[in-house]
Amino acid sequence: MTDVSDPGRVALDARQQSAGSPIVAIEPAHYRIPLDEALVDAGHGLHTHFEIVTCRIVCADGVEGTGYTYTGGRGGSAIASMLRDTLAPLLIGQGSAALEDLWRIQRRAVHYLGLGGISGFAVAASDIALWDLHCKREGLPLWKATGGHSDQVACYRGLIDLGYPEDKLLEAVANEMASGHVGVKLKVGRPDIARDVRRVQSVRDLIGPEKALMADANYSWEADQAIAFAKGVEDCGLTWFEEPVAHDNFAGYAAVAATSDIPLASGENLRTLGEFRTAIDFAHLSYLQPDASNIAGITGWLQVADLARDNNLPIASHGMHELHVSLMAAQPNASLLEVHSFPIDAYTTAPLRVENGVALAPHEPGIGVNFDADLLRPHRCV
Amino acid sequence: MTDVSDPGRVALDARQQSAGSPIVAIEPAHYRIPLDEALVDAGHGLHTHFEIVTCRIVCADGVEGTGYTYTGGRGGSAIASMLRDTLAPLLIGQGSAALEDLWRIQRRAVHYLGLGGISGFAVAASDIALWDLHCKREGLPLWKATGGHSDQVACYRGLIDLGYPEDKLLEAVANEMASGHVGVKLKVGRPDIARDVRRVQSVRDLIGPEKALMADANYSWEADQAIAFAKGVEDCGLTWFEEPVAHDNFAGYAAVAATSDIPLASGENLRTLGEFRTAIDFAHLSYLQPDASNIAGITGWLQVADLARDNNLPIASHGMHELHVSLMAAQPNASLLEVHSFPIDAYTTAPLRVENGVALAPHEPGIGVNFDADLLRPHRCV
Repeated sequence: MTDVSDPGRVALDARQQSAGSPIVAIEPAHYRIPLDEALVDAGHGLHTHFEIVTCRIVCADGVEGTGYTYTGGRGGSAIASMLRDTLAPLLIGQGSAALEDLWRIQRRAVHYLGLGGISGFAVAASDIALWDLHCKREGLPLWKATGGHSDQVACYRGLIDLGYPEDKLLEAVANEMASGHVGVKLKVGRPDIARDVRRVQSVRDLIGPEKALMADANYSWEADQAIAFAKGVEDCGLTWFEEPVAHDNFAGYAAVAATSDIPLASGENLRTLGEFRTAIDFAHLSYLQPDASNIAGITGWLQVADLARDNNLPIASHGMHELHVSLMAAQPNASLLEVHSFPIDAYTTAPLRVENGVALAPHEPGIGVNFDADLLRPHRCV
Repeated sequence: MTDVSDPGRVALDARQQSAGSPIVAIEPAHYRIPLDEALVDAGHGLHTHFEIVTCRIVCADGVEGTGYTYTGGRGGSAIASMLRDTLAPLLIGQGSAALEDLWRIQRRAVHYLGLGGISGFAVAASDIALWDLHCKREGLPLWKATGGHSDQVACYRGLIDLGYPEDKLLEAVANEMASGHVGVKLKVGRPDIARDVRRVQSVRDLIGPEKALMADANYSWEADQAIAFAKGVEDCGLTWFEEPVAHDNFAGYAAVAATSDIPLASGENLRTLGEFRTAIDFAHLSYLQPDASNIAGITGWLQVADLARDNNLPIASHGMHELHVSLMAAQPNASLLEVHSFPIDAYTTAPLRVENGVALAPHEPGIGVNFDADLLRPHRCV
């Protein structure tokens, strides 16, 4: 066990021992991008923009990698500040190869600042950059480097549709089904529960019994409301019911699970391995949905995938489908990849490829997400 | 219940309804201050600096308030970024009087960024500034505005002494006892548990049986190590055993509680009301120790104090004693105030007053913490 009394010493040891060309530069960049239309969900409300924070890491031998994270429109400058002022000084001079050591050094240094907050996004960007470096050096695509089970995974479309009137909702769902997804997820979570039940029923009627259908309340209901909704849609064949109540209302999850057979899902607001463990123990989750962009990167996401496998649970994902396609494909216990409504991949050189409801992981060495500088530049903040 | 579908609308409603002179300026400032000596604990390692981030809020009628938060040396620039770029745009133009509404607007806006992280520190600084404004307008000292039970509270000294050899430790404890504290808290959490047990026994021998003695492992042990330590010190009359294991290792806390009569304490790493609720339900805590600087300010701290009272538990505190003295004194269920080793109050116009082991809350209108601009200026970062 490492002597934990002195993080300076831990860092020094890692520096002496860690293999790989030393890191010589860390360059964060913050972009704020308008959405084509304003999107509404019950928890976060109105989205008019999303943000991308990229992190370029350069090694002494000239090899470089780029990672990134994203937000729903707020906080990007704090993420960039943490990368520049807190994480870069820890990483500069370290060998670039020891991914787990570098991840631990960062997580330990920011522990008091809250592992589940901005630091989870900032470490995500640096960790993903280090994985990009690693995969490029090894000549491996990400799906091979992180498990290699497969290079493809079935996917569904996650709509942010709470603001749509029903005719627009049905039109949007029809479009998504026509583009080949195996299913669709709707937003629910309004105080008018009967309205949400009707929307789910209407969509089920539209898509037929075979397609996957999910509902996501974005943590906005109390347990009694979530139970009433679950009862209302019990004949709709939901694959899962996502974030029925607050992510840390474990008793609320348990109450919903006790009165409904609909599997429960959560993850985008669970930000540490400990939180996922507690959720498994006390919240009766059926699907874990970690997001590498907020759970400290690929290293953090893989820990949750392992936890899911150890508990005989499927792994799912939230957001950043252009990266998660590789992580999900690589896992033997993968369920469905979410194709999210923030079009991060529209700003890359190769948007997500979906064929017949199956998303295909990139085969090039690296994480397979290469931003198009010309497309991003107009949106740069700092 | 507010319609939660549109935070812009919530903000607009609050703006229209909220009383008080509108907020016209929010000015964060970030200071990084060297400690007189480097301090070591088992969880965070070496501390060479601490940071203060202040937040000045000015209203249209010229009345102003100043709040603040602090860190153990990292992350201050991210906190300042969030205040400037995320929270200020939400607050400018809002009436300044509706403290709870303003708190909810901020917490909701940063939810996806993790309530338990940097946002908890940033909202702390703005919330404390709004309380300062409120108290000044009402002509109330903070202890009266937040409960008014008393204007004083017994206090102990929290040492960060893991790096001290035993002779230096005993000298430091003797000095603290001579200055009138009712007790002292030591750092433990080394892999060499027998050494930590000996240090606790030596300090108990030095201070005698009447003084309060606590031990704090800063979440660095596994449950079996914490149990071995608790067994070793079972005759030392510890008032509490703080952070024996990781704050989110609830099963670990329960295992320690099941094998030891020493009361368990935690809080500096619990950052939401939900986390405190879960800790009460599953971790068998005896003392809750919220820190207003990281749990979103006075509003967040008071929620935990209420939760403690509802569960017949005492409330304690972590850090920023110059502010917590008022919050603790105000509560009927207060235990002991921690006098922390980061000397924030050395940079104010009136450091904490302690007489015969009792800390005295300021009686002037406002939060009673007024920074000395001349003392802080040399340490300004941005």
